Amino acid sequence: MTSDYKAIDYKTIEYQVDNKILTLLLNRPEVMNAYTIKMCNELVHAFNRASDDDEVSVIVVTGAGKAFCAGMDLSAEGNVFGLDESRTPTIAEMQAYEEMDGVRDSAGKVTLAIYDCKKPVIGAINGAAVGVGATMACAMDIRLASEKARFGFVFGKIGIVAEGCSTWFLPRIVGMQQSMKWMLSGEIFNAAEGLSGGLVYEVCAPDMLLARAYEMAQQIADNTAPVAVALMRQMLYRNSAAAHPAEAHKVESLAVFYTSQEDGKEGVASFLEKRPANFSGKVSTGMPPFYPWW
Amino acid sequence: MTSDYKAIDYKTIEYQVDNKILTLLLNRPEVMNAYTIKMCNELVHAFNRASDDDEVSVIVVTGAGKAFCAGMDLSAEGNVFGLDESRTPTIAEMQAYEEMDGVRDSAGKVTLAIYDCKKPVIGAINGAAVGVGATMACAMDIRLASEKARFGFVFGKIGIVAEGCSTWFLPRIVGMQQSMKWMLSGEIFNAAEGLSGGLVYEVCAPDMLLARAYEMAQQIADNTAPVAVALMRQMLYRNSAAAHPAEAHKVESLAVFYTSQEDGKEGVASFLEKRPANFSGKVSTGMPPFYPWW
Amino acid sequence: MTSDYKAIDYKTIEYQVDNKILTLLLNRPEVMNAYTIKMCNELVHAFNRASDDDEVSVIVVTGAGKAFCAGMDLSAEGNVFGLDESRTPTIAEMQAYEEMDGVRDSAGKVTLAIYDCKKPVIGAINGAAVGVGATMACAMDIRLASEKARFGFVFGKIGIVAEGCSTWFLPRIVGMQQSMKWMLSGEIFNAAEGLSGGLVYEVCAPDMLLARAYEMAQQIADNTAPVAVALMRQMLYRNSAAAHPAEAHKVESLAVFYTSQEDGKEGVASFLEKRPANFSGKVSTGMPPFYPWW
Repeated sequence: MTSDYKAIDYKTIEYQVDNKILTLLLNRPEVMNAYTIKMCNELVHAFNRASDDDEVSVIVVTGAGKAFCAGMDLSAEGNVFGLDESRTPTIAEMQAYEEMDGVRDSAGKVTLAIYDCKKPVIGAINGAAVGVGATMACAMDIRLASEKARFGFVFGKIGIVAEGCSTWFLPRIVGMQQSMKWMLSGEIFNAAEGLSGGLVYEVCAPDMLLARAYEMAQQIADNTAPVAVALMRQMLYRNSAAAHPAEAHKVESLAVFYTSQEDGKEGVASFLEKRPANFSGKVSTGMPPFYPWW
Repeated sequence: MTSDYKAIDYKTIEYQVDNKILTLLLNRPEVMNAYTIKMCNELVHAFNRASDDDEVSVIVVTGAGKAFCAGMDLSAEGNVFGLDESRTPTIAEMQAYEEMDGVRDSAGKVTLAIYDCKKPVIGAINGAAVGVGATMACAMDIRLASEKARFGFVFGKIGIVAEGCSTWFLPRIVGMQQSMKWMLSGEIFNAAEGLSGGLVYEVCAPDMLLARAYEMAQQIADNTAPVAVALMRQMLYRNSAAAHPAEAHKVESLAVFYTSQEDGKEGVASFLEKRPANFSGKVSTGMPPFYPWW
Repeated sequence: MTSDYKAIDYKTIEYQVDNKILTLLLNRPEVMNAYTIKMCNELVHAFNRASDDDEVSVIVVTGAGKAFCAGMDLSAEGNVFGLDESRTPTIAEMQAYEEMDGVRDSAGKVTLAIYDCKKPVIGAINGAAVGVGATMACAMDIRLASEKARFGFVFGKIGIVAEGCSTWFLPRIVGMQQSMKWMLSGEIFNAAEGLSGGLVYEVCAPDMLLARAYEMAQQIADNTAPVAVALMRQMLYRNSAAAHPAEAHKVESLAVFYTSQEDGKEGVASFLEKRPANFSGKVSTGMPPFYPWW
């Protein structure tokens, strides 16, 4: 069974599935894949669609042309911050922001869709990843970078604060000191600094970047059980903030029990028989009854 | 005063105290120290016993033979996931899992016992640490690895999810990106990768591993106050998830006050007199009245 | 508008503002800048004062003479732990410690003032940073260290526990394993170990330390918006412990909206016009109505 999401005709991205790997291409190369509300909406749609599409095991995100995503499209009149600024909300409205889509940071809509996605997401950062391009990458599980990649949490330089839930993701990836350095200075840094700082998992020659991303994606797609992977991704994020390991113990106990009923039996049998496993569990229909548990 | 725990006749582990250091040996070398429910129960007993045993200042855990722990004993009929699978619980029972020991992940019982232990725990990873062997190691405070060590969070490959509270411990040790890479791929990695990824503190030549672990253990045992060490271990874990540093401030204030009454006076006196300190506080009787504070 | 805090005549520190950078000098070189209750009170005053002083964009903390801060002044009779020990509080009083200033760890008062400060804080660790000298440094956003710097969380060696909210800050900076190693052993380590362990951002030749700290401070002061920087600093700390990225999304949405009204417009305009930005927002009067949001 595949997703009910209609394969809408995306204007700013491409959605291409091949051999269980979805490539999401940011596709406005003429403006360095600058981000717009339309791109936000299409990305949210695409991540939700892929989340429930059993033909997709792993997602690779990359950019068309020279850039990954050079930030907000500053030519988008009246909406350069990704907010609906047609009027100024009152403080009370701002605080009840759930009701006010106009003051919801659009980058956060994308990163929350990535967070909720049941598939691993690998960023293949081919060039400039600045502003929302950098924060979007923080929500991905693993980041590979071309030697030509550049990063910048440049928000303070243009007078605003970091978005895209990056103040939640970044400290979990690189720790507090490196987060402070990059965010408070707004500096641009290259792939090597991204690697030594812990943001980038591996630096690749430009013409090897996608091949390496697909290799890593295929390793996951070919060898692991989709339901187990979907659960572990959520468990790592959620338990990273849990007060006590007993919180992890509760969910892990239920999830080991649940996954051991079918995929686990096949996994052990295939291991003992020294053959590839053939997992039958699907994320579209096979997530446990206690999921989501929050 | 020493522990009330009876020195039971362990079948799967050895418990050996020498010069304030307890060596816990996983001792089923004929099956690469494969983990069973019996080993789980003996390890929980041993960590609880050591926790209150004033003759033990530091614990070193290692494996007999070539492996540290190669994972669940897949030959253990009907119980390869460490769960009691004699019947399938209902969802309601699963959600009220505290009542249902049968669906409690047994690896988590061990790591929670390590977490609660009042003594520092050093893992001396001598060989393969796979599955529960890897997750058990995550709950230890410091991991040394032989050049021959191998690690693998292989759960997804056999269809199940990671256990042993590893989704709580691992992100705190190596950050989110490395946790995702290892857990989502299920890959096996060597000691050098464990070191560069942050899981391993130090890589040792195989014949130097235990000597180095004992050296590190002795440094703690010989120089520090047991009550202070027991408290700091808990404070680091608990405050790593606290919402605000004021939470740490409350506990630290009480704990500085408490420890300053006796051990602190001796510590300062010994420092000023340039002599070794002789701390009288014992964890068996001397933990503060506000411990545990949760 | 500048702060209402009176420029009191500090006895243990110096407060010097030059070109938007405040240098806070720990200034008891004859005793290696040993910490006293007076120094505590003066530091709290200085951080609060700088927090609201619009003439200060970034704070650099360093020590006079050879040391940064060699720990508590053990010659301070009856108060070597920074607590008021004139009498022993009851347990009930200790647990209601908010009412009992006498059992509040004084180091924590300083680090909470740093945490609450609206300005980035760079530690320029020129020499020994031991005990409270080490924990105070943990609350700073970025730590540069002279090759002559030495660090030590030596608390266990003198019988007491770590303070200064370091059990909250340190795991966020260096992760759990390195935190355990340094805190449980109480060992002294040098700048190179501080760098490889992740506590130190950069090691400098002794005569280059302050120049490098000022360069880093000036990069922030000259290029970023003060209100955005003040907010991002808090957002990183607070969201590092938030249970779900949606928590970050709420605050980020409000803060992007708020900062986009004035500083953001100037930031984008200056970017498009390729000129330096002239941000008008001030932390003394321009923090958003939802700040603080906790």
